Amino acid sequence: MSKIYSYVAGEFQTGSGDPVPLWNPTTEETCAEAFLGGFSASSVLQHARTEGLNSLASMGFADRAALLKKMAAVLHEHRDALIETSIVNGGTTRGGAKFDIDGASGTLAAYASMAKNWGASQHRVDGDSVELSRGARLLGKHSYVPRGGVAVLINAFNFPAWGFAEKAASALLAGMPVILKPATLTSLTAAKMAEILVESGVMPAGTFSMILGSVTELLDQLGPRDFVSFTGSQKTGGIVRSSESLIRNSVSVNVEADSLNAAVLGGDLTADADCYQLFLRDVFREMTEKTGQKCTATRRLIVPESMVETVATDLKERLQALKVGDPSLSDVRMGPLATAQQRDDVFAGMERLGQHLERLCGENRPSELLGVEGGKGYFAGASLFLSKDEKSLEEVHREEVFGPVACILPYDGSAEQAAELVCRGEGMLVSSLYSDSRDFLREAGFGIAPMCGRVVLVDSKAEGYSLPTGMVLPQLIHGGPGRAGGGEELGGERGVHHFMHRTAFQGSRGMVERILREE
Amino acid sequence: MSKIYSYVAGEFQTGSGDPVPLWNPTTEETCAEAFLGGFSASSVLQHARTEGLNSLASMGFADRAALLKKMAAVLHEHRDALIETSIVNGGTTRGGAKFDIDGASGTLAAYASMAKNWGASQHRVDGDSVELSRGARLLGKHSYVPRGGVAVLINAFNFPAWGFAEKAASALLAGMPVILKPATLTSLTAAKMAEILVESGVMPAGTFSMILGSVTELLDQLGPRDFVSFTGSQKTGGIVRSSESLIRNSVSVNVEADSLNAAVLGGDLTADADCYQLFLRDVFREMTEKTGQKCTATRRLIVPESMVETVATDLKERLQALKVGDPSLSDVRMGPLATAQQRDDVFAGMERLGQHLERLCGENRPSELLGVEGGKGYFAGASLFLSKDEKSLEEVHREEVFGPVACILPYDGSAEQAAELVCRGEGMLVSSLYSDSRDFLREAGFGIAPMCGRVVLVDSKAEGYSLPTGMVLPQLIHGGPGRAGGGEELGGERGVHHFMHRTAFQGSRGMVERILREE
Repeated sequence: MSKIYSYVAGEFQTGSGDPVPLWNPTTEETCAEAFLGGFSASSVLQHARTEGLNSLASMGFADRAALLKKMAAVLHEHRDALIETSIVNGGTTRGGAKFDIDGASGTLAAYASMAKNWGASQHRVDGDSVELSRGARLLGKHSYVPRGGVAVLINAFNFPAWGFAEKAASALLAGMPVILKPATLTSLTAAKMAEILVESGVMPAGTFSMILGSVTELLDQLGPRDFVSFTGSQKTGGIVRSSESLIRNSVSVNVEADSLNAAVLGGDLTADADCYQLFLRDVFREMTEKTGQKCTATRRLIVPESMVETVATDLKERLQALKVGDPSLSDVRMGPLATAQQRDDVFAGMERLGQHLERLCGENRPSELLGVEGGKGYFAGASLFLSKDEKSLEEVHREEVFGPVACILPYDGSAEQAAELVCRGEGMLVSSLYSDSRDFLREAGFGIAPMCGRVVLVDSKAEGYSLPTGMVLPQLIHGGPGRAGGGEELGGERGVHHFMHRTAFQGSRGMVERILREE
Repeated sequence: MSKIYSYVAGEFQTGSGDPVPLWNPTTEETCAEAFLGGFSASSVLQHARTEGLNSLASMGFADRAALLKKMAAVLHEHRDALIETSIVNGGTTRGGAKFDIDGASGTLAAYASMAKNWGASQHRVDGDSVELSRGARLLGKHSYVPRGGVAVLINAFNFPAWGFAEKAASALLAGMPVILKPATLTSLTAAKMAEILVESGVMPAGTFSMILGSVTELLDQLGPRDFVSFTGSQKTGGIVRSSESLIRNSVSVNVEADSLNAAVLGGDLTADADCYQLFLRDVFREMTEKTGQKCTATRRLIVPESMVETVATDLKERLQALKVGDPSLSDVRMGPLATAQQRDDVFAGMERLGQHLERLCGENRPSELLGVEGGKGYFAGASLFLSKDEKSLEEVHREEVFGPVACILPYDGSAEQAAELVCRGEGMLVSSLYSDSRDFLREAGFGIAPMCGRVVLVDSKAEGYSLPTGMVLPQLIHGGPGRAGGGEELGGERGVHHFMHRTAFQGSRGMVERILREE
């Protein structure tokens, strides 16, 4: 039985009280024990604020980029062990596990590559100099400077590796020691990752900590130099954001929450369009990958009335052929949900949708499960619903069902109505538009952009090189307004800026230019 | 007696209930009556979200820039009337009034000039295209797009004109109709400005509203497309920011609060340095202009121990020669505080500081007041305190005294200790460093930058062209971390970005580039 511990002040901690069991969601057996707490929040912060900040202050951007590169390499080196924990504790298939693990090392490597030529400097000039006086003797210049604080990374259960890496890459590059708080119930992968990073010796002293258990005491001790980066439910994000001490100290909080992402089939497409096949392929993948437990998964299919029957038939066929069961088996394509609670929530969501929408396919618990002993496992069947009236639309938009579930929303085929329906989601991480009409893509694209962090445009020409819409790319921003939390991460250098502080410098031309010269 | 009204849904409103009296802080006589409320929040929003959004959606950036230019022109045209209301209702001198009024038209004009060549487009591409596939067939590109919501501008009492203009310039350029909520007690100038803008006919339908009275109901009805821009006390800012509905809907909130701005005299300077004279000139101005009621006013003077006596003597001499009294008199250099409440708060702050620091000069209420009838007016004397021990330092940093008050904090002359003392302010809008040593300016500059929105570097060469440190410039960002609210405004185009939404577009090269082409 694996035992997992917090890593605080340079030591793995023994925890306090009884350990919390972690489960294998396929077998419902205990797969590990997590020892929570047993240390003070102030000791965590003290360590990060002294040793951690000193370590990073002695490194310029290029050195920090080299650190990220080493982190990527050791995680990749132990890829198989991480995939194993992901299957055991997360219920992910091998493919789903790779999406998380390779996503983690890939993001670290991408940031390493981006910043490797940023030199020995610790600040990044923002924009051109501004002349403030006639003759330009007086100059203004902006720069992103290190905050001199710590980054608390509160991560969701579904991406224990990537969710850490996508935040840590920017934070460490910005010069902030990171304190990871993984979701307890899937913390086996996070703990394995911590063990790999610590034992490899790549992390400079104080730059990495991981705490299991409550984070409340820690948040209460943060100040204006610190940063909280949260991924999880909108509700918990709201609790963090309304924390009295965080508000009093104007602590920066970034929230990334789930959202009702949409895929729109353009009014111009018919069943024989290549673009329609791309739509089917993507939607099927985004419904079922990681058992639908991705914050970027597609939840709503906006389909022209004339194509509803075709889409329903084609998707049903694919979903019904999907092999569900023990994710450690090589021919299984979808495993269970990650926890009993997730399963209960998804069942409740399916029931609620079923009362108001037509269920086109999928059972709550699939009757056929490969390699699973009778009745065991937190499985849910890939389910497709059809919205038929305004009341059913209200239910679709009430709450996200965080599993292999999507709803078809018919529309009249116009870009205007498509955008209107997409925007009823009130804030999405990503939505995708499938069309061969540039006018449709332009009108719907700008129509949904204010409500989306990322807009994916797919036309028939994209065949062969388009990427899965739910794949978050380090070069593009990840986040979204409203329901999606109102935050922003990644986007290349943009992600680093959030973990720094922008200051305007004003003074005589020579002085400002000399002081802000980047090495 | 002037009567002032909300401007809602294209009409001045009659209000509900008894009017609230506005005071002349010099004479303590009523100078106007404000008629609050009398309309529903939903009607304000409805008007802005339909007519206002339509008006702006029919305009590209260049058209909106032309609108700002017209606004600047009509405000400038009615400059004398606005200066008059500022003297009467704000207690400002003519010079102080100009700082507000000309600051307003100047900021609008600066943004008009910046964006006049942005063309007919409504979105602004951010950064270069990113290649997402080998051969670059797949491309990513970021753009700032209009949010499609409204901007609620909650303004402080001290800059009724500029405080509106610096927010409205960015918001309108971004395509957001503005709803101004001025501070009630100094709303005479805001109302005069509203009257000028409305009667001139420059504001397109629905793009400008002004509400007098409570803003709570309005905030409760905002959604993810809307924006709240707040200037005022940190405490009220915290209340706004923790509003349950704003958090639930991830409404973007920008807070700009007062802060303990510092001016540092470098360890290298002696009394005969030109730079020392600039320090004296700036500090005197920043203590007394607008009776110290500027969020960028200097509150702390960080002075080398060896120079404390010199600074104390020189500043005392200037402060004691300051003519205080009726601000409508041409030889008066400092008027009263704006309200009775401000006066009470400043007196309380002076008492508190006086218990722990040495008061070098200044009375609570000055005994000599020009042109003021006995005992009348909310006057406070320009007061200088000297911190002598750790306990007194704690008091200095406990709370800002929002009046003509500053404290001298002695230090050892090193950049390190100077930065440490400045940063004890826990978040400043601006701080300034005076030195002829580049090393001092560099080390102290980067030391304080994480805690400052703007850092002003002054050396002896700046004589003749440096600007007052408390002057907020449209080209440079205004805002600060921690105590200063954690927000950011202005900074040229940066200010516009906050009122827009950044979206990543992803797709085939040709499609993305064509759709995001700016006109």
